[in-house]
Amino acid sequence: MGNNNKVTSREVDSKVIDLNSSASAGNRTVAVHFTTEHNNQFCDFTDLLLQYVKESKVSNGSLNLYTPHTTTCFIINEAETGYINDFHSSIEDIIPSEKYYEHDDWDKRTENMQEDEFKNGRSQVRASIVGSTNVTIPIVDSELLLGRWQRIFFVELDCSRDRRFFAQIIK
Amino acid sequence: MGNNNKVTSREVDSKVIDLNSSASAGNRTVAVHFTTEHNNQFCDFTDLLLQYVKESKVSNGSLNLYTPHTTTCFIINEAETGYINDFHSSIEDIIPSEKYYEHDDWDKRTENMQEDEFKNGRSQVRASIVGSTNVTIPIVDSELLLGRWQRIFFVELDCSRDRRFFAQIIK
Amino acid sequence: MGNNNKVTSREVDSKVIDLNSSASAGNRTVAVHFTTEHNNQFCDFTDLLLQYVKESKVSNGSLNLYTPHTTTCFIINEAETGYINDFHSSIEDIIPSEKYYEHDDWDKRTENMQEDEFKNGRSQVRASIVGSTNVTIPIVDSELLLGRWQRIFFVELDCSRDRRFFAQIIK
Repeated sequence: MGNNNKVTSREVDSKVIDLNSSASAGNRTVAVHFTTEHNNQFCDFTDLLLQYVKESKVSNGSLNLYTPHTTTCFIINEAETGYINDFHSSIEDIIPSEKYYEHDDWDKRTENMQEDEFKNGRSQVRASIVGSTNVTIPIVDSELLLGRWQRIFFVELDCSRDRRFFAQIIK
Repeated sequence: MGNNNKVTSREVDSKVIDLNSSASAGNRTVAVHFTTEHNNQFCDFTDLLLQYVKESKVSNGSLNLYTPHTTTCFIINEAETGYINDFHSSIEDIIPSEKYYEHDDWDKRTENMQEDEFKNGRSQVRASIVGSTNVTIPIVDSELLLGRWQRIFFVELDCSRDRRFFAQIIK
Repeated sequence: MGNNNKVTSREVDSKVIDLNSSASAGNRTVAVHFTTEHNNQFCDFTDLLLQYVKESKVSNGSLNLYTPHTTTCFIINEAETGYINDFHSSIEDIIPSEKYYEHDDWDKRTENMQEDEFKNGRSQVRASIVGSTNVTIPIVDSELLLGRWQRIFFVELDCSRDRRFFAQIIK
């Protein structure tokens, strides 16, 4: 059984940029750049990160993932469509889209207003409650210690946006 | 006051396996294996981990805990029966057991079906929202910097299962 | 636009204490001590932590933040009053103050009772669900990799209390 085509379709095109200057010593860090397509998109970066760990040839250490956005998170869970739909449905129950958010009340708000301001009050509250801003996964003998069903998802809690995250190997 | 017997009863029998090959340098990692008994079980590994940190003789560093399962999490909080019951009651309110989960709809689902598939849609959603897949605790002068009331719990969000987690010391 | 006065007002007076003995090698750790004023206070430690990272002159590594309390958390998000009010309103919807908490039922409870026990059942459940007990942020070429809108908040989920957190640089 299983449906590898569907699993594969959660991968997104991305560009990896090395952040370390040639002069810097110690841990290696990259930024992964990509564009999300829709709210509740689970972007699967497992294969890219497994490859990154393999190439880094770190025998013992850890992989730290960090999102610099206020409306995204990391979730490590199963690549299964039903679960992802259940997550979306539960989030809508818990932190509904159709509710008053003071963050989106532009008659009232005075701080940090932008020309292209999004209405994303629900997304910032969701990012404060679900998933994690960072996750640190152990590496032993060059292997990332993911469980059998675990996939590493960058989750879009807002709408389609240009996004990036940082992946750092600590040894 | 206090009731040490009850606190102690949250400990579970476990087996610790060293993951590092003799040839590997750097950080030390173990896998802790055990069997959980029921949904919402808070398994207290504080004493085992304090001993592990003590024996590791790392003067400054951190302890990283990681669960490789999709229906468990770490929660650091108080070993008090009322709180643990309150957590269970709140989780039932927020992500109810009695609700439609597409992950458990085997007429619809096509991905990752197993011979012994569990109905655990609620558990995967819960694991995406409560607690953490990993937690990193500082160590200073060989002491783990836990607060007075903090205990380290591995929380079972599914039913009785064989489980493990990884404990890695980073120095 | 923006309103720097309001943003600045989220900063709290604090005292920083070095935890490392002069004899200890490796990573540097400090404890930041302060007093919170009210429930749902978002205490902004971004500037203090940026300065700490700058002074530490670590070219590549990470900053690990850890709270030793059972009724607080870290949230990395935007310093905007509407969002902070939305967070409070959503938490009240999800884990209400007006509800029975067994942790606060002193006729029933037998464990860990203190002379000055607070009624904080809701706060411990909230701390198990929202935010994080720890967060690890990458440092590259002496720069903390925070996003444009990200601020580092220590969030009070109980009432006014003496608090502290640990900030550790891992290189």
